[in-house]
Amino acid sequence: MGPMGEFDFIRWLRERTPTDPRVLVGPGDDAAVLAATHTPLLVTTDMLMDGVDFRLEDVDPVRVGRKAMGVNLSDLAAMGAKPLAAVVSVALPRSAGTSLAKQLHAGLAEMAAQHDCPIVGGDTNSWDKPLVISVTAFGVPGPQGPILRSGARPGDWLVVTGALGGSILGRHLDVTPRIAEAIELQRNARLHAMIDISDGLAADVHHLVEESGCGLVLDADSIPIHDDARRMNDGRSPLDHALSDGEDFELAFAVSPEDGARLVGVQLLDKCPVARIGRFVAERGLWIQQHGERRPLPPQGWVHRFEENDP
Amino acid sequence: MGPMGEFDFIRWLRERTPTDPRVLVGPGDDAAVLAATHTPLLVTTDMLMDGVDFRLEDVDPVRVGRKAMGVNLSDLAAMGAKPLAAVVSVALPRSAGTSLAKQLHAGLAEMAAQHDCPIVGGDTNSWDKPLVISVTAFGVPGPQGPILRSGARPGDWLVVTGALGGSILGRHLDVTPRIAEAIELQRNARLHAMIDISDGLAADVHHLVEESGCGLVLDADSIPIHDDARRMNDGRSPLDHALSDGEDFELAFAVSPEDGARLVGVQLLDKCPVARIGRFVAERGLWIQQHGERRPLPPQGWVHRFEENDP
Repeated sequence: MGPMGEFDFIRWLRERTPTDPRVLVGPGDDAAVLAATHTPLLVTTDMLMDGVDFRLEDVDPVRVGRKAMGVNLSDLAAMGAKPLAAVVSVALPRSAGTSLAKQLHAGLAEMAAQHDCPIVGGDTNSWDKPLVISVTAFGVPGPQGPILRSGARPGDWLVVTGALGGSILGRHLDVTPRIAEAIELQRNARLHAMIDISDGLAADVHHLVEESGCGLVLDADSIPIHDDARRMNDGRSPLDHALSDGEDFELAFAVSPEDGARLVGVQLLDKCPVARIGRFVAERGLWIQQHGERRPLPPQGWVHRFEENDP
Repeated sequence: MGPMGEFDFIRWLRERTPTDPRVLVGPGDDAAVLAATHTPLLVTTDMLMDGVDFRLEDVDPVRVGRKAMGVNLSDLAAMGAKPLAAVVSVALPRSAGTSLAKQLHAGLAEMAAQHDCPIVGGDTNSWDKPLVISVTAFGVPGPQGPILRSGARPGDWLVVTGALGGSILGRHLDVTPRIAEAIELQRNARLHAMIDISDGLAADVHHLVEESGCGLVLDADSIPIHDDARRMNDGRSPLDHALSDGEDFELAFAVSPEDGARLVGVQLLDKCPVARIGRFVAERGLWIQQHGERRPLPPQGWVHRFEENDP
């Protein structure tokens, strides 16, 4: 976008930026200015690229905007945080012009508004290459402060929201960041550690194990498998999909057995089921247990993937 | 970068991330956590693309990293702010791999360290397209609070740091963000409005005029012209280059005539000259005055560019 195209677009954006007491200066100056929060500030950033994270020729750009904002808000949810604000940078394919920018903004703004997250600035560029969109989101801690990956203890339960696997059938573009659920969970249980499932359950719980310096045994039969995982029908088992597929954007968290039993028993998040899928142990490592047998689980996912590739 | 490549790179980054009292959680969790600042927070973001903002085949990636951080720090300087932290997202060409990531990081980290700005997180991706690098930087206000574009008043002087034009000869890759100078200026003068010169003097002072709701008369003979502008030798005058070229990353700011006269007379920034180049007027508009004649100046730059294009 040439300078005047960019300035026109900034004007268009400013007209669509609601006032917000948390935002002292919004889009259009050299920097945005946020009001002092008097709490720690959380910052996360995620970049999506056409052809890697979505295919612009197949997808409504509004949905791409929703996803770009949603994956960042999911990272805030994984810290137990509330959104404070976000900024957005884009490299637009020159041929698509301003209409693409406006559609992306519609999706970004819709997702941001659903989670009370003002978009306070950005940078709009164009080039003759595919779309790139980078969002940086800021948050303030929830009632238990930032929930890190490092607080799981031997004996804790691993609990997960929702159901896993097969997001590639479409859900990977329809992120539901578990912001409200993470706040609600903090009102009902002490969360020792948390992560969102973006790279796949096995890979992501591997981070919990590494950062917490303990081990984890997953219970294969307890893992909630999404209907999409059963519909994949590609020779890999639904469980394999639930362990290895990414972009579920559900939360996996460590709680005491007492808190875990109450959460799972009461099912307090009535639109979002929670399930116990494993227990943390003192010995470092990651295992999966099924039919009484315990096997190491590589962070890349289900061991069968490697067996299939063996000669 | 595949998942494990990314995790190895995050480990490499964490080993290179110095501890900082402002950073409670650095790279490697779902979000970084910054300590509470108890002041407004400034946020700016800029994205650079290979083939648009630099040509990776001609330029040391360390220099690209320096520029990507530098342009963001320049935006903080334009608000009179001090850097607090930054995050970096990259889309790396797959063929370049980890060595490019490490070289970029070296440049980013070098520029950030020079201005006391910890890099607290990021997102590392790869694809089969050219390099994209997006930085978001946070700052805290300087002694006079955020200096906006909107505070210039009729009668104010427009003062500029450094010399302008011809940055394309190489300086556009060697950004010197005027962070320290902006702080020093605030100790010696009341800054009414400020901007950094990224799109070109005419375009950027046009923003000051628009946002402040007044007018500005530039004095052509007072504009400090960089030696690079004289060396361009492309048929456009050095003054045209000083008015129209972008990426000088100098500061242009409005001060009272009393403050302006003292700043320019004393030259208190001894490694960085300051010059009075215009005065704000009540009538809205942008003009340039030379040899006693005053002409309108379009924000795109020197009027000769348009005359040259006329049939």
